[in-house]
Amino acid sequence: MRTGKQLFSTLADHKLTVEISETQFEEPTGKQVLVRMEAAPINPSDLGLLALGADLANAEYSAGKFVADMPEPFYRGSKARHGLRLPVGNEGAGTVVAAGEHEMAQALIGQRVACLSGSTYSEYTLIDAMMCLPLGNISAVDGASAFVNPMTALGFVENAKMEGQTAILHTVGASNLGLMLNKICQEDNIPLVNIVRKAEQAELLSGLGSKHTVNSSDKDFSKQLCDAIEATDAYYGFDPIGGGRMIDTCLRAMERVAVKKMTEHSRYGSDQPKKMYHYGVLDMSPTILTPSYGHGWTVSGWLLFPFLRAAGSETVERMRQRVLAGLTTTFASSYKRQVSLEEMLTRDAVLEYSAMKTGEKYLVTPPPLRQALA
Amino acid sequence: MRTGKQLFSTLADHKLTVEISETQFEEPTGKQVLVRMEAAPINPSDLGLLALGADLANAEYSAGKFVADMPEPFYRGSKARHGLRLPVGNEGAGTVVAAGEHEMAQALIGQRVACLSGSTYSEYTLIDAMMCLPLGNISAVDGASAFVNPMTALGFVENAKMEGQTAILHTVGASNLGLMLNKICQEDNIPLVNIVRKAEQAELLSGLGSKHTVNSSDKDFSKQLCDAIEATDAYYGFDPIGGGRMIDTCLRAMERVAVKKMTEHSRYGSDQPKKMYHYGVLDMSPTILTPSYGHGWTVSGWLLFPFLRAAGSETVERMRQRVLAGLTTTFASSYKRQVSLEEMLTRDAVLEYSAMKTGEKYLVTPPPLRQALA
Repeated sequence: MRTGKQLFSTLADHKLTVEISETQFEEPTGKQVLVRMEAAPINPSDLGLLALGADLANAEYSAGKFVADMPEPFYRGSKARHGLRLPVGNEGAGTVVAAGEHEMAQALIGQRVACLSGSTYSEYTLIDAMMCLPLGNISAVDGASAFVNPMTALGFVENAKMEGQTAILHTVGASNLGLMLNKICQEDNIPLVNIVRKAEQAELLSGLGSKHTVNSSDKDFSKQLCDAIEATDAYYGFDPIGGGRMIDTCLRAMERVAVKKMTEHSRYGSDQPKKMYHYGVLDMSPTILTPSYGHGWTVSGWLLFPFLRAAGSETVERMRQRVLAGLTTTFASSYKRQVSLEEMLTRDAVLEYSAMKTGEKYLVTPPPLRQALA
Repeated sequence: MRTGKQLFSTLADHKLTVEISETQFEEPTGKQVLVRMEAAPINPSDLGLLALGADLANAEYSAGKFVADMPEPFYRGSKARHGLRLPVGNEGAGTVVAAGEHEMAQALIGQRVACLSGSTYSEYTLIDAMMCLPLGNISAVDGASAFVNPMTALGFVENAKMEGQTAILHTVGASNLGLMLNKICQEDNIPLVNIVRKAEQAELLSGLGSKHTVNSSDKDFSKQLCDAIEATDAYYGFDPIGGGRMIDTCLRAMERVAVKKMTEHSRYGSDQPKKMYHYGVLDMSPTILTPSYGHGWTVSGWLLFPFLRAAGSETVERMRQRVLAGLTTTFASSYKRQVSLEEMLTRDAVLEYSAMKTGEKYLVTPPPLRQALA
C-alpha cells in the first residue's frame, strides 16, 4: 500500500469542508491500475462537489483546508451527499505505477495515461484500465484534459448527427470547450452559431474561422442571432449557463426565424422542431422559459456519461481516437495557472477558479512534476 | 351564398378587437361541407386569439364587440397576426346544410356532426368533410367538445404508450380534460397521479376512482407527490399551467424518488429519465426551472395537431371511434353556462371564461337552437 495526499469534500451541518489528507491507496487488482497524478484540470463539472453554492468569500481558509457555509437551497438540494466524504477531480493525466494482474492493466505499466477517475485531485488514483487513454509522447499537461471537454464537444457533434441535425448553436462560443467545438465543426463542415459576451471573444472566434459569431453585449444581438440562425438553420443548441434567459432567448430567436419562413399565419406558431440542451449551471439562478416558441420545442439535460453509454462502445472508441490524434491541435486546452493541491485551497485560487470565467482555467500539478505551460 | 354572423379577432396598434359581423359564406365545393353551428365550447386553446394577454377588465364593451389594450410583451409576441382579422373557435357541433360534390361530403348532408374548423364561433362554418365526426343520435351539446379535450386526453395516453411509459402524472387532475384522462387511464389500467388545488377536487377525483390524487394546497404536498410517484413510477407528466414552478416541482419530486432508489451516491444525480410536457399556458408568467434533476430530464411542448400528424391516420381513426363511443360517458364535458355570440362578448362573460377556472367552461349556442344543459 502506498500513502499520498488526496483532496476530500464533505457537506454536513450546513458546512462544506474541503481538505487534503493523507490517504492509503490499495494495490490495484484485476483490470485496475494505480496512476501517480501529474496534472488535473479544474473543470466546471468539478465545481459541483468543490465549491458550488458555498459562501466562499467568507470561508475559513487554513493550510490545505477550507470550511464554508452552505446556504439553502443548495444545502438541502445536495441531501444525497450529506455526511459523505467524497474525493474530487473528474480527469487528469499521470503515470501508471502499479497494475492488476489482467493483461490490459499490465500493458499500461510505466505509461503516461489520461484518465477519468472522479478522484484526480490526489497524488494517486486507482482506476480501471478501460478509463485510461495512453498518451504516448504527449505530456501530462497536454493530456490532462483529454476527456471531459474534448469528449463533450465531440459528443455534441455526434449527438447532432444522430438526431439528423445539420447545424449547431453554442451559447458560450469562446470557452475552452467552445473553441474545440469550433474546430470540430469546421473539420466536419457543420455550420456553428457561436454566442459570445465580448467583442474580443468575437474577434478571437472570427480569427479561428468562425463565420457565425454573435455578441450578446451588442445592441442588435437579437437581430444578429436571428440572422445567424437563418443562415445556418441551427434549431439545435447547447447551453452550459443554465440559469437566466439564454435558453429562452435562443428558442425565441429560432421560432422567430421559423415563423418568418411560414407562408401562412398559424395561431400555434411554427412546426419547426427546436431543441436546446442544458449541459451545465455556470449561472445557478433559475432557468426562465417563456414558451411561445410554437410547438415542437424541447429543453433537455445533457451530460457526457449517459451520452457515451447511449452512443455505444464503437462510437466512443472512434471519439477517443480522434481526441488522441488531436490533443495538441483541435482538442488543446489552455490554462491560466498551475497550482499544487495545497495552493488549490487558498482563498485567492478558490475565488478565481470558482468564478468559471472564460480563459481562466486552473491546472492542479504537484510542484516536483510541474511542467511549463505551453 | 348564405350570410350569417361570425366572430372575428384583430390585433393591431396595441388593441385587441373582438367583434361579431355579418359574413358571406361560400357554397361548399369538393369535399367541403357547410355546417350550421349549434354549440361550440370556449376552450383554453381558443383564448389565445380571443383574450390572452389583453387588459380585459378595462376594455370597452359594446353590443357584439369589445376593444382591449394589449400590453407588451404580449403585443410584440403576437407579431405574426398583427393586422389580420381572424376567425375563432376550434371546435363545435352543428348540422350539415350544404355539401360539395364529393361523395364524402354528400354523405353528410342533413347529419349532425362534431367538427374541428378554427371558426366555430359563427352561424356557419365551411369545413373539409374529413374534419367532421358524424354524431348520430348524440345532441349538439353532447358533441360540441368531441375533439379538443377528448383527443388531447387520449393523445396523452397514446403518447405515453408510444414512449414506453407505464404511468402518467397530470398537474390539473380536476379539469374537464383531467376527468377524461382519469377515466381513460382506469379503462387502460395506467396508474395516474392527479395534482389538484382544492380538497373538494381531491374528493371529486377519489369518488371517480382516482387512487393517486395529491393536493397542492396541503402542507405535506411535496411528500404526497413523492409518495404518489413512488407508488406509480410516474416519471412522465403533462402540464397545462405552464407558468410558475409546477413543472419544476414535478421534476424535483421525480428526481427525489429516483435518488431514494439508488444504492450509491452519484454527483450527477439519478439515471432515471424524467419528462414533463408543457401543453398550455393557463398561467402566462414565465416557466421557472431549477435543473438539479439528475440527467435525462426533458421539458417539451405538446400540442394536439402535431401529435395527431405524427401518430398517423390509423391511430387517429382508432382514437376518434373511441371518443365517439364514449361521448356521453368517458368523454363527457360539462359547462357552467350557455351564451349566444353576443352574450359571449359581454364584460361579465369575458372576465369569467378568460379566468379559465376549473368547472367554469362556457358553451356558445345560438338561443333558437339552445338545448338544456345536462
